Formats: sequence, structure tokens, C-alpha cells
Amino acid sequence: MSGEIRVIPVTGLPEIAAGDDLAGMIAEAADLADGDVLVVTQKVVSKAEDRMVDVDPEVGHKPIVEAESVRVLRRRGDLVIAETSHGFVCANAGVDLSNVPEGRAALLPVDSDRSARRIRDALLHRLGVDVAVIVSDTFGRPWRRGVADVAIGCAGLRPIVDLRGTNDALGRELQVTEVAIVDEIAAAAELVMGKAAAVPVAVVRGVDPSWFGEGSVVADVVRTPAEDLFR
Amino acid sequence: MSGEIRVIPVTGLPEIAAGDDLAGMIAEAADLADGDVLVVTQKVVSKAEDRMVDVDPEVGHKPIVEAESVRVLRRRGDLVIAETSHGFVCANAGVDLSNVPEGRAALLPVDSDRSARRIRDALLHRLGVDVAVIVSDTFGRPWRRGVADVAIGCAGLRPIVDLRGTNDALGRELQVTEVAIVDEIAAAAELVMGKAAAVPVAVVRGVDPSWFGEGSVVADVVRTPAEDLFR
Repeated sequence: MSGEIRVIPVTGLPEIAAGDDLAGMIAEAADLADGDVLVVTQKVVSKAEDRMVDVDPEVGHKPIVEAESVRVLRRRGDLVIAETSHGFVCANAGVDLSNVPEGRAALLPVDSDRSARRIRDALLHRLGVDVAVIVSDTFGRPWRRGVADVAIGCAGLRPIVDLRGTNDALGRELQVTEVAIVDEIAAAAELVMGKAAAVPVAVVRGVDPSWFGEGSVVADVVRTPAEDLFR
Repeated sequence: MSGEIRVIPVTGLPEIAAGDDLAGMIAEAADLADGDVLVVTQKVVSKAEDRMVDVDPEVGHKPIVEAESVRVLRRRGDLVIAETSHGFVCANAGVDLSNVPEGRAALLPVDSDRSARRIRDALLHRLGVDVAVIVSDTFGRPWRRGVADVAIGCAGLRPIVDLRGTNDALGRELQVTEVAIVDEIAAAAELVMGKAAAVPVAVVRGVDPSWFGEGSVVADVVRTPAEDLFR
């Protein structure tokens, strides 16, 4: 692959509410083509799927975080780093209080790969375009300051491209081989979204066609505790 | 910001050797404009800066990894997760055996922010273009399979964009506020590089002009052990 990649923000989407036809709204707002990767932020997916809950003003969001956690890895002050039912390790078990109405919180989609697949299937059916879909979320990282977007679900895309056994440019077998392109695409998309700009969807155009195929973030990207050195 | 971002591979660079004028070679190969972010992989920087060392075939690369480590966080089999003198936490303390000649290993640049600054200054001097520069490397991540590119040095760019106190689209104060755009740009660049395609440089065009300024990956992105929950 040697071509250019374009990261295009999708503007003009209305505020998303529970039960909204998110794929239909994206179909109207975005100019999609076969081979595009559509990146949709978790927040609008959670809103459309009615994953919003009330925050009890007496006790705050902590009981919600506890309910969403299957394992707490670290606590410091108000911060909880927890593992979700999907296997994601993130702050507050993915419970999100920003860009949601006062007194409400957004939970992660129940099955974030299925959320991506539904959007992909709906766009194929409605527009006849064959796009891959990533549902992205904003996670902190150990050892490095700042947050970055990663994928929590995907459809139509191989999330990790296995270059194992491919020879490198000098003819030696590559050592670092499995690239999490699904997370790199999610990160690229975030660059045109802007936290305060309310652009929850972006199109990434020009990725290597060989990256398309079957795959799941939960099955393919989440490390099992047994193979994880940091759990 | 609502514009499109382009990620453009820089092709046609020769194989880089110790002492090469890397900035000069990039100036000839790339079509640069003010406001671009130039992403250069660690490997060509390390080669140009002569950070290559011999691997003793009797003992392998382990003594080199030990020498580059200031703290070992985890070991499993041949894998060592270690902290480098810069404060990066990564496999083999950043010692790289792929895409280098047999029997050799590439160490990280001594001062990766300075490496970026030198390239930026040379391009400003030689071409008169004002570009930000990122030196990128490929790191694994805890909890998630696959590797992804992150920044190990930068110049002319604020590595983390602080949106603290900015109101979100619903007028509430944002909770997640500091976005590591330097790592997201490095990840985006990797998408056009391809591990086996020998494209060690990419241009990211169209990023928010407000992101340009002073900054350092080592000073601004690396978490100190005191603030880190996973060290």
C-alpha cells in the first residue's frame, strides 16, 4: 500500500436520541463510497441504543460504575480503572458523563461489535455501499498522559493485520507483526472530530483493501487475562 | 475544526545509513507545506544518528535490552517490558531487531525530542517550511492485542491538547479533556507506512493550527511514576 488516506469529518448530524435511526441519519449526512471505513463514536451509538441512565444526585455515578465493572484494577480518589463485561479496561468502566444531558450518564453499548455490524448492514441495505464500521471510544493509557480514541467495536474489517512471516524490507522475518489498524483508524478519525465540535462521525478513505474482512474487537483485540501481563 | 486531514506517504527515500543527512533526504523526497506534521519513524532516525549496535551472536540481544532498561516491569519468556531512560514503557526497552541488518540492533534515539527538533530546524532552514515533526515508534499495549504507533519525540507541536474547561456541545464542562493528539497523529501516519513497504516517513496535512507550538513528548506525555497507577 502506498496511497494517501483521507480523514473526513461528517458534519450536519442532528443531536441523536434514543431509538433514532442512526445509520439512516449517517446515510443522509455522509458521502460514502465502497471501501470507506466509517468511524462512529460510542456516545451517539449509546444514545441511539438508549444506553442512557439517570444519575442519582444523592449518590452520584459511582454505583453505575460499580454495576458496569466486572473487575476493578485500580482506584485513586474518584478515578476507577475497571474492566467491563466486554473485557475493555478503562476509566469508570466506560461510563460517560460528558456530552450527555445533566443528570444522565451514557453506558457502553451492550455488544459494541454488533452495534458496528448493524450500522454496516443498514448502510449496505439502504445505500448499497460496502463500508467497514468502527465504533470508537476515548480511553486513557497507562504510562502516557492524555487520552486517545480506540475501537470498541467493528464490522467488515480485520481489526489486527497479521504481518507475521512477511519479510521486511531487508528480507529478514519481521518481529513486530500484528498491527492494530482498527485502533489506528479510530485515532486518526478523532483528529477531525474535536471534543467540543460535536462531530461524532468521520470517514477514513483509502485504507488497504486487504484489511477488509471479518473481525471483532471483543474477540480479536481484547487480551484474555491469561495472556495479559498487566492484569 | 471541521476540515479534512490527509495522510500522505513519502516514498522514494533511499536506505538510511549512519551520518546521513536525514532532513535533507526528506526535503528532497517530500512535498512539504507550512502547517504540515511530518512523521518520521524511529528506525530511520536511529540509523541516521548511528544508534545501531552489534548483537553478540553468543548471548543475543538480552544484554543490550538490560543496558537500555532503567526498570523492568514484566518478564515473560523472551519478552521484557521495560522502562527506558526517556521514561517510555515498551517491549525490549525499545531495542529493535526488525528492518535492521542481520546481527545488528537499533537503539532508541538518546533524546527523541531533540531528534525531532533537529529535523524541524533543518527543514525550516533548508526549505523555509514551518512543519511540526514527530518521531514515532511501534509499541504494544496492555489489555489490547496488536501494536500501534505512538510518538517518542516531537517538535513544533503541543503533544496534548488541553480542552479543560471548554464547554462541550451541550454546555457542560468536559470531563475528558486532554487529548494526546501527538499519538493520534503518529497512529494515523502508520496507516500509510505498512510494515513491509519501507515507507518510514509520512506527512499529515490539515491538522488544527492551534495545535502547533512548543512541546516535548518526554516532558509532556510520559507519566511520572508518582502519577502512574500501573508502575
